[in-house]
Amino acid sequence: MGRIVDPCAIACFEAGIKLGALFHQFVGLPVGEKNVENVERAIESCVKLQPFVKNVKVSISVEKLREKESAFGYTSLTPEMLYAEVEVIFEGCRVKARLRWDDKLMYPIMEVVEVDESE
Amino acid sequence: MGRIVDPCAIACFEAGIKLGALFHQFVGLPVGEKNVENVERAIESCVKLQPFVKNVKVSISVEKLREKESAFGYTSLTPEMLYAEVEVIFEGCRVKARLRWDDKLMYPIMEVVEVDESE
Amino acid sequence: MGRIVDPCAIACFEAGIKLGALFHQFVGLPVGEKNVENVERAIESCVKLQPFVKNVKVSISVEKLREKESAFGYTSLTPEMLYAEVEVIFEGCRVKARLRWDDKLMYPIMEVVEVDESE
Amino acid sequence: MGRIVDPCAIACFEAGIKLGALFHQFVGLPVGEKNVENVERAIESCVKLQPFVKNVKVSISVEKLREKESAFGYTSLTPEMLYAEVEVIFEGCRVKARLRWDDKLMYPIMEVVEVDESE
Repeated sequence: MGRIVDPCAIACFEAGIKLGALFHQFVGLPVGEKNVENVERAIESCVKLQPFVKNVKVSISVEKLREKESAFGYTSLTPEMLYAEVEVIFEGCRVKARLRWDDKLMYPIMEVVEVDESE
Repeated sequence: MGRIVDPCAIACFEAGIKLGALFHQFVGLPVGEKNVENVERAIESCVKLQPFVKNVKVSISVEKLREKESAFGYTSLTPEMLYAEVEVIFEGCRVKARLRWDDKLMYPIMEVVEVDESE
Repeated sequence: MGRIVDPCAIACFEAGIKLGALFHQFVGLPVGEKNVENVERAIESCVKLQPFVKNVKVSISVEKLREKESAFGYTSLTPEMLYAEVEVIFEGCRVKARLRWDDKLMYPIMEVVEVDESE
Repeated sequence: MGRIVDPCAIACFEAGIKLGALFHQFVGLPVGEKNVENVERAIESCVKLQPFVKNVKVSISVEKLREKESAFGYTSLTPEMLYAEVEVIFEGCRVKARLRWDDKLMYPIMEVVEVDESE
């Protein structure tokens, strides 16, 4: 494929892939206070393997985890409790994007938060 | 493997596999009033392919779907809105099991509801 | 968030989300010749619900499905057999992206294939 | 629900749930030599949270991982490389079940391997 868009647009595309993938791969998994850090680090380790990823941070809200906790002491990972940031670099353009729950929209917003062409 | 348990126990094992699989494969998928029936039938078509399955019924609560609906007119499939029944037959023993949300336990209960050795 | 990149970059970001989501939500589902079209249409119906999606096409290779078919007459959906195209429009910029298996790279490539600012 | 089957059948049902869940939640995740142990432990930590689970062991074949490795140095978790054992105890009955890839059947077999009523 010839280059059809600039590197920053491709970096945005790649960042989008990572957030969409992360959300849909891991929503539903059993999570509780006992393994929440374990799960966060494992998800990060998965995302780090993917092309162009420079950095990733995953954070599951323990507060929301407790609210959702079942009688069995854990719950399924839901969109409400999942926060993630991913940084990708593609041909000198660094893009940072994040996934965060938006209470008003009742939606897991994914958004580009930084673009830096100087990398 | 030699037979180590009776056919009804194996039928229960197989029913458990189907419910666990269904839940964890499909929780998180985008669903709205527009495609809810489409999704129900597709999930059923997937479960029907699996060994020993005689029947399956999947039902997504439109009421709960509406409650969870985002500003974008759809939501992710959550445990709260998912109901399923599966019937398996293994060597003459028919087992019916179901998945239902339990509000009190805040948990997607999976349970054996019928066992019939006469099939 | 203030605008930090042009609409085409955001359209690329959105297209990336859809492909990453699609892949990681549905890989692993039970699929066979009996339900392959059912599954294709259901996946499409899920992606169509997502923001900015104009069009989507999902195609599962029946040839590769047959190669992978188990003794039970079906298989799990694998990256090798999954093809998808998605078109998104964001503020007048239309982006078409696709997911295709690349045999040489042994990888499910996701790539931007068209960008059109005139929509 | 009144008791309709013996504890060992319910223990088998519960073991089936865990294996079906594990397979369909995690197949597709990005895995490589760098994070394989991290992923194994995280999956185990998820299964351990579930009701009646006494023990769980997850093992991803590094050999098969290497065979499937893409040009980007990792792959998606596939049924071929996934092995798991789970032990559940329900009302005094201990059941051990496993998930293993069967090359001849080209299928991820899930099977009960031990039943012990004396726990």
